[in-house]
Amino acid sequence: MNIQQIIRENQLGLLFQQGTVGIEKESQRVHADGSVVTTAHPKAFGSRSFHPYIQTDFAESQLELITPPNKKIEDTLRWLSAIHEVVLRTLPEDEYIFPMSMPAGLPPADKIKVAQLENPADVAYREHLVNSYGKAKQMVSGIHYNFQLDPKLVETLFKNQNTYKSAVEFQNNLYLKMARNFLRYQWILVYLLSATPTVDEDYFRDGSPLKAGQYVRSLRSSQYGYVNAPDIIVSYDSVEKYVETLEYWVNSGRLIAEKEFYSNVRLRGAQKARDLLKNGIQYLEFRLFDLNPFAPYGMTLEDAKFIHNFILFTIWLEDDLNEPNVVELGRSRLAEVAFENPLSETKYRNEGEQIIQQLIAMLETIGATAEQIAYAKGKLYQFAEPSQTLCGRLVKAIETAGGYQQFGAEIARRNKAQAFERFYALSAFDNMELSTQALMFDVIQKGIQMEILDENDQFLRLQFGEHFEYVKNGNMTSHDSYISPLIMENKVVTKKVLAKAGFNVPQSLEFTSLEQAVASYPLFEGKAVVIKPKSTNFGLGISIFQQGVHDRADFAKAIEIAFREDKEVMVEDYLQGTEYRFFVLGDKTLAVLLRVPANVIGDGKSTVKQLVEAKNSHPLRGDGSRTPLKKIALGDIEQLQLKEQGLTVDSVPAKDQLVQLRANSNISTGGDSIDMTDEMHDSYKQLAVGITKAMGAAVCGVDLIIPDLKKPAENNLQSWGVIEANFNPMMMMHIFPYSGKSRRLTQNVLKMLFPELSI
Amino acid sequence: MNIQQIIRENQLGLLFQQGTVGIEKESQRVHADGSVVTTAHPKAFGSRSFHPYIQTDFAESQLELITPPNKKIEDTLRWLSAIHEVVLRTLPEDEYIFPMSMPAGLPPADKIKVAQLENPADVAYREHLVNSYGKAKQMVSGIHYNFQLDPKLVETLFKNQNTYKSAVEFQNNLYLKMARNFLRYQWILVYLLSATPTVDEDYFRDGSPLKAGQYVRSLRSSQYGYVNAPDIIVSYDSVEKYVETLEYWVNSGRLIAEKEFYSNVRLRGAQKARDLLKNGIQYLEFRLFDLNPFAPYGMTLEDAKFIHNFILFTIWLEDDLNEPNVVELGRSRLAEVAFENPLSETKYRNEGEQIIQQLIAMLETIGATAEQIAYAKGKLYQFAEPSQTLCGRLVKAIETAGGYQQFGAEIARRNKAQAFERFYALSAFDNMELSTQALMFDVIQKGIQMEILDENDQFLRLQFGEHFEYVKNGNMTSHDSYISPLIMENKVVTKKVLAKAGFNVPQSLEFTSLEQAVASYPLFEGKAVVIKPKSTNFGLGISIFQQGVHDRADFAKAIEIAFREDKEVMVEDYLQGTEYRFFVLGDKTLAVLLRVPANVIGDGKSTVKQLVEAKNSHPLRGDGSRTPLKKIALGDIEQLQLKEQGLTVDSVPAKDQLVQLRANSNISTGGDSIDMTDEMHDSYKQLAVGITKAMGAAVCGVDLIIPDLKKPAENNLQSWGVIEANFNPMMMMHIFPYSGKSRRLTQNVLKMLFPELSI
Repeated sequence: MNIQQIIRENQLGLLFQQGTVGIEKESQRVHADGSVVTTAHPKAFGSRSFHPYIQTDFAESQLELITPPNKKIEDTLRWLSAIHEVVLRTLPEDEYIFPMSMPAGLPPADKIKVAQLENPADVAYREHLVNSYGKAKQMVSGIHYNFQLDPKLVETLFKNQNTYKSAVEFQNNLYLKMARNFLRYQWILVYLLSATPTVDEDYFRDGSPLKAGQYVRSLRSSQYGYVNAPDIIVSYDSVEKYVETLEYWVNSGRLIAEKEFYSNVRLRGAQKARDLLKNGIQYLEFRLFDLNPFAPYGMTLEDAKFIHNFILFTIWLEDDLNEPNVVELGRSRLAEVAFENPLSETKYRNEGEQIIQQLIAMLETIGATAEQIAYAKGKLYQFAEPSQTLCGRLVKAIETAGGYQQFGAEIARRNKAQAFERFYALSAFDNMELSTQALMFDVIQKGIQMEILDENDQFLRLQFGEHFEYVKNGNMTSHDSYISPLIMENKVVTKKVLAKAGFNVPQSLEFTSLEQAVASYPLFEGKAVVIKPKSTNFGLGISIFQQGVHDRADFAKAIEIAFREDKEVMVEDYLQGTEYRFFVLGDKTLAVLLRVPANVIGDGKSTVKQLVEAKNSHPLRGDGSRTPLKKIALGDIEQLQLKEQGLTVDSVPAKDQLVQLRANSNISTGGDSIDMTDEMHDSYKQLAVGITKAMGAAVCGVDLIIPDLKKPAENNLQSWGVIEANFNPMMMMHIFPYSGKSRRLTQNVLKMLFPELSI
Repeated sequence: MNIQQIIRENQLGLLFQQGTVGIEKESQRVHADGSVVTTAHPKAFGSRSFHPYIQTDFAESQLELITPPNKKIEDTLRWLSAIHEVVLRTLPEDEYIFPMSMPAGLPPADKIKVAQLENPADVAYREHLVNSYGKAKQMVSGIHYNFQLDPKLVETLFKNQNTYKSAVEFQNNLYLKMARNFLRYQWILVYLLSATPTVDEDYFRDGSPLKAGQYVRSLRSSQYGYVNAPDIIVSYDSVEKYVETLEYWVNSGRLIAEKEFYSNVRLRGAQKARDLLKNGIQYLEFRLFDLNPFAPYGMTLEDAKFIHNFILFTIWLEDDLNEPNVVELGRSRLAEVAFENPLSETKYRNEGEQIIQQLIAMLETIGATAEQIAYAKGKLYQFAEPSQTLCGRLVKAIETAGGYQQFGAEIARRNKAQAFERFYALSAFDNMELSTQALMFDVIQKGIQMEILDENDQFLRLQFGEHFEYVKNGNMTSHDSYISPLIMENKVVTKKVLAKAGFNVPQSLEFTSLEQAVASYPLFEGKAVVIKPKSTNFGLGISIFQQGVHDRADFAKAIEIAFREDKEVMVEDYLQGTEYRFFVLGDKTLAVLLRVPANVIGDGKSTVKQLVEAKNSHPLRGDGSRTPLKKIALGDIEQLQLKEQGLTVDSVPAKDQLVQLRANSNISTGGDSIDMTDEMHDSYKQLAVGITKAMGAAVCGVDLIIPDLKKPAENNLQSWGVIEANFNPMMMMHIFPYSGKSRRLTQNVLKMLFPELSI
């Protein structure tokens, strides 16, 4: 069977490049100085008994961040970024993530706590590791790269060969070949991508094997790293031999469990190796990779793609039948290269260059992108220039920083600061709505499984155990009934339903003729009304009788003015008071917000323009949809508004003078959002819940007009009135208000969907 | 207090004309010959213990049809029409509704059964009536007109007077004045609107009081009609006196209950008269009106408006303080006029003309429409031309028909035939969707309370007891969750959800570049696929590889053709078979439909054009949205389709030759709908239910492609595949299919909403 030939002849290049990648990344929580913390795994990350994304590895301080598998490697890296942002923003203020594999500033061994998992067996296993390897060695972190071939590729390859009769057997041998070739040539990836040139003195129980000032390519992959005893040899010749040899070491007591086998390639697809015989190998776990401190999340997208191509090459490359023990050969070569000086040429440069050249040829054959080919060529060049390898650059950076721990601490602080730059967003998913990003943040934090069904449509599938839910646009869920938004969409129906349920609703009548409208005067006499064209434009044609209409001629004049603007005119009850938005979920008003039209407050020195600029520099304000608040513009409408106050953009308002820049209170035109939840009298909160129930809704944004938020509600329009009920209400303005307390509504949405989870 | 003055000075004309009207109309179920039936009240009308619209009056054969109260009198008449259509289409084939008040062809007394109501007291009351009046007299039918003034009018009038201190007292006296003036001048309405000039001989126990050939204006309002003994006098001077005198007659045993008081005006607002003292009079019931056989439903809209104006006039008119006993005067005048010859001048012509002239003056003062004023003038003219009164015209019609019963039977048959003309619609609500009309039909039939919240939006509120539900577009309800339609709206998400749930879904890939698409060939090799532009136009650019794509060049060619039509091209699994629509509600597939493209079948003689014309004459076919099926057009697309078969519109297809007129199977382009529910193998029905559940939907239209509907479903795309799941699925095509069994899905929707009702 010649795989290359089958791929070439059947033009399977595209299919060959498909595959699924998931990443697991370990790292230590550290103090600002880079030293490892002794605090417990933060409770905010929910329960490690099920968390799919945020776990602990060996030690309580050692985070293990896990992406779900993705068909596009870009998505895997987006997940890695998102999980990091969640972790960095959730950690205590004085904790950071160490960006390198080898720990620095280790606490005394008695202060290092193994991960406090719920299952006592998991804790016992870790205690065993302590006895075998010492605590320090177990504190090393790395990246595991899980890779599955596209099942369609495997199926197509199988159909086009005649060596194997059984599809499972074929698949097993394909993965075994990959494993063997990977182990044979893994030293190349260490040469190019390793990043553990040194470590703190105190890491070693028996004194450092490094001379003063000595750097190596990869301590982690060397005999001093996170490896089994050299005589633990497991066969990759067949699944049967793999299982037999692995079980031998466990049965003989040299390994406490199969998972103590620290090979750089693990065969995956079953909890116990023996089950691989039945299930077949489903994917491979590559465990070689050091954390790259130059990548904010431990690995760059380019390197992840390069590794993918390297793995493809392990299929492309024919087995070298002249080398019977490729695995052992590879292991010893790895150990040698790992201990080389990172700034010197490698002993196996020739082999490395040959392999990468062949890899490039493969990329060209299978139609890989120009970018990927160029990137591989860059790697090839690094054999001539060891200083350009990751480790070469790292050594220089450590020296510039003045030490290993210092360098790591510097990067750790920088990464954390960066994660807070746009603290309201999830950078990797910033093409989605902010409210959905906030929900995704909470989902990742609490450990609910998430699948993004449609990014443009903000459509998520969430799962916890067997229980799954769909969410669209942050709070559209199965908890709302189909009819609720249909009622709310129709303002006439909404009014009828709310009026019937006994709520204070401003009534309105619509007229299509001036005469008919004027003749209707008696219906309104004495009442406070708003007369307005049905479709209002910039407030033109609106007359308000706040004190009630008492003169027929005044009424007729107002009707006439309104008819100048539209063919249809409305006469509506006028409600005196302030408009508040109530965010209701289930039986509770979770947030009350006051929206204030765009404004600045004078300081007696700055011009309006300067005051606006200063206000616009607030981190929550931006131009588009990518920030919770919007910058105040100084366009025609704002300048007109200034003019009405006798001001221009160059006026200097007096100290504490309120300058209105808009008449409307929309956040989208620079308005301020002010949380008033705690200030609002409870009776209005109860009313908003009742209105939500009358709408048949689980989640609802209720707009009430209230003259005095401190007085209890009464059953008349002078006390309060409901002017709108909104489905899919906005959440960002409550989560990140301009002033007042933040209300993390997305967590309430999750609580509603998954009451079984204690969030 | 001068009401006229208050209305004039405060320009309350418009408010004065507001008010709420509800109508109750009795009528006998009869045979085709007009004789009264002896059958039981049809079970299809549900239970009389709560039915708000369809009840029985005295006898089991005597329907009482009740409209809800409406602010627009037009709506009351629409309801009256709708209830009639429901009743006429529900009655047994050989039963009709007699169009006149006096019964004809009465069965022998022992065959007349009093209404078999659930409450024994109700039956006992009727048995008492039999003893007091005999059965025949109780078989008379009439119309009761319930009227309530606009509460705002009453409030405004109250504010502008100073006679009464209490609002309730004021309101009571207003209604009492109306009642007295109505009773005083009711003879005028009898003169103009009566329609009981005669009756069958056998109606009278003691021989007919009419000479041979004698006609009167209103037997029903005469002493021989449906009246109490002449000495039963109840006072309308005050609520207190009304209650006292009424209770006197009941206590003395002369009336078995308050409801036996057959006054032409009843004070309403309490179950027992005494409670009026507390509640106040809420509205009046005017019971004077004979059925108008010339109006399909017993009263014309014009007359209903005229009666409304006449009632307003009873407020407008000042109390005549010189006539102390107006009620008794009116009653005697009524008896006199009722027994006049309908073709002769009335004795009280002068008074009648004066009153109507004053009424016309009132209409002019309050700004009534020109039509209403003209109609009142027409009535005025009828005092000079008795033959133009309703009764005058009726006498002629009876003579033309050759007898009273004959005339009634003729009209009864005609009305029933008319109710079936557009049997799929509810004529009065034909501006709404047909499916909503069908649901409203069932709602009226089964007796669920209905409020139309928004006609344009097809928004209904249904209520049974305390339980209410909203319905939009026939089947959008609270039983569906908000997320379900959002899933179904998004085809990508739908596919993902269904695939994840294990259903056979055709997979597709989308491409934006020709090269990329062609390079993807290996992904599809050997598979049956459809290659198509993403947005298909008239099927252009579509290539189908039914037998699987086996040649890369063919594939590339198809991709190229598709890219000529769109920037995005899809390659989708091709499913071989026939498309069926499954209508699922809850746990059951209620209907399966096959949609066949527009076609005709040759007869060897007619041209295509003639065949199309013949097929288009089917009663279900129409042009717009007002019929369940659409006429087949003979436009460009159809002619192109004919051309492909070597035909033109003038060709004469052979006998039994199938002529296709369309490639697409849409009902909207003249397709046929064929019910296949009973033919479809149950396994597919179960799948459709499962798909509906996966969508989280209660009501869903599932489109499956099935090669063989008799073979059980298998778990592969060769056996079946789901291509769409639709929310708010169409119902009309199942309710009124072109061929096969009708499936009354609207009833299932009601069963789902109101499981407590046995429908």
